[in-house]
Amino acid sequence: MTYRLYYSPGACSLAVHVVLEEIGTPYTLQEVSVARAETQQSAYLALNPKGRVPALAIPSETKLLTELPAILVYLARQRPEANLLPIASAVEEARAHEWLEWLSGWVHGVGYGGIWRPERFCAQDTSAHEAIRANGRRVVQEAYATIERTLGDGREWALPSGYTIVDPFLLVLYRWGNRIGLGMRVNYAAWTALAERTLERPAVQRVLAREGISIE
Amino acid sequence: MTYRLYYSPGACSLAVHVVLEEIGTPYTLQEVSVARAETQQSAYLALNPKGRVPALAIPSETKLLTELPAILVYLARQRPEANLLPIASAVEEARAHEWLEWLSGWVHGVGYGGIWRPERFCAQDTSAHEAIRANGRRVVQEAYATIERTLGDGREWALPSGYTIVDPFLLVLYRWGNRIGLGMRVNYAAWTALAERTLERPAVQRVLAREGISIE
Repeated sequence: MTYRLYYSPGACSLAVHVVLEEIGTPYTLQEVSVARAETQQSAYLALNPKGRVPALAIPSETKLLTELPAILVYLARQRPEANLLPIASAVEEARAHEWLEWLSGWVHGVGYGGIWRPERFCAQDTSAHEAIRANGRRVVQEAYATIERTLGDGREWALPSGYTIVDPFLLVLYRWGNRIGLGMRVNYAAWTALAERTLERPAVQRVLAREGISIE
Repeated sequence: MTYRLYYSPGACSLAVHVVLEEIGTPYTLQEVSVARAETQQSAYLALNPKGRVPALAIPSETKLLTELPAILVYLARQRPEANLLPIASAVEEARAHEWLEWLSGWVHGVGYGGIWRPERFCAQDTSAHEAIRANGRRVVQEAYATIERTLGDGREWALPSGYTIVDPFLLVLYRWGNRIGLGMRVNYAAWTALAERTLERPAVQRVLAREGISIE
């Protein structure tokens, strides 16, 4: 019995996919395409009523583990010597959770949620969707300015302690920035340097090839 | 030097306030009233550019620690023997993070955010705010049905391992349910039983008295 990751190519499940490779554990992949609306099909909803990816099947558990930060933290724990979550320092660990929560709840949830899923905020009235999309884009751009400023202080990774589960999530968001036309390489120099360091990792290269995607 | 909690009475900072009492650490309180828009005043924004509560000043840190789940996890770590985060089991710990992430990002962020802060999703076009509020209410009601079903399986607390940092957050959301007229005592029996167990804790009673609020 091994882990099974429910993922969609290029979705935030990409960060989990990277961490599975980083810790070197056996796992299988089950594609649930967001583009083909497979996350909303009854077969998947029966497994994960939230209708989202990522979700992780853990051999000892009857219910899937959901929520990106929870899955990342769980996997980091499976191989503590990889230091993917800096648990030696309570403050450093808290800063990892602070990053994950903000990136997941605000940048992804409210920012990209507004751009790509305006119906989550206003299911009934589609006339509001354009305004919600524009608002989501503003949220993303303000957040990206904050991220660039933070990464520009000379640090090598999101957390001073080194490469952690936060960095693959930042790679996902870097890629999404290009998808919505923010011109990441031109406009976000510090973040681009972090993305390039991340891309040097063999685990990351294997995962991008397997999902059939690039960062640009 | 002790911790300082930036809070607003009855806001989700209430969960942090409870955990500070639970771990028995010295701390001071700094009220930043959401009702009086003090979270958006320049004095507070200079300390916390996110303009939200809770935020925690930690003596060793120059920057405040933000994001509710991150602060709760940090404080639980300060007194591991209280078992407020079940770190002995990686799966149990992950389930705690799964609860926190969903309650924070979806139920609070999208649900109550829609009801009380529609401008977060559509700052420019106020004509959409009523539809966003109605959508937020629907999100909350669907989530509350899920929570009631989950708590109704005979468990005593949100996590089978016992009382954790998830439970004070559920108490906050229980209180908010009453604020928006969901009639928690009548309509959510299992959740009411959990809220009553939570209210028996001396730490919780001290905090409600200090913030000058009740749950009904």
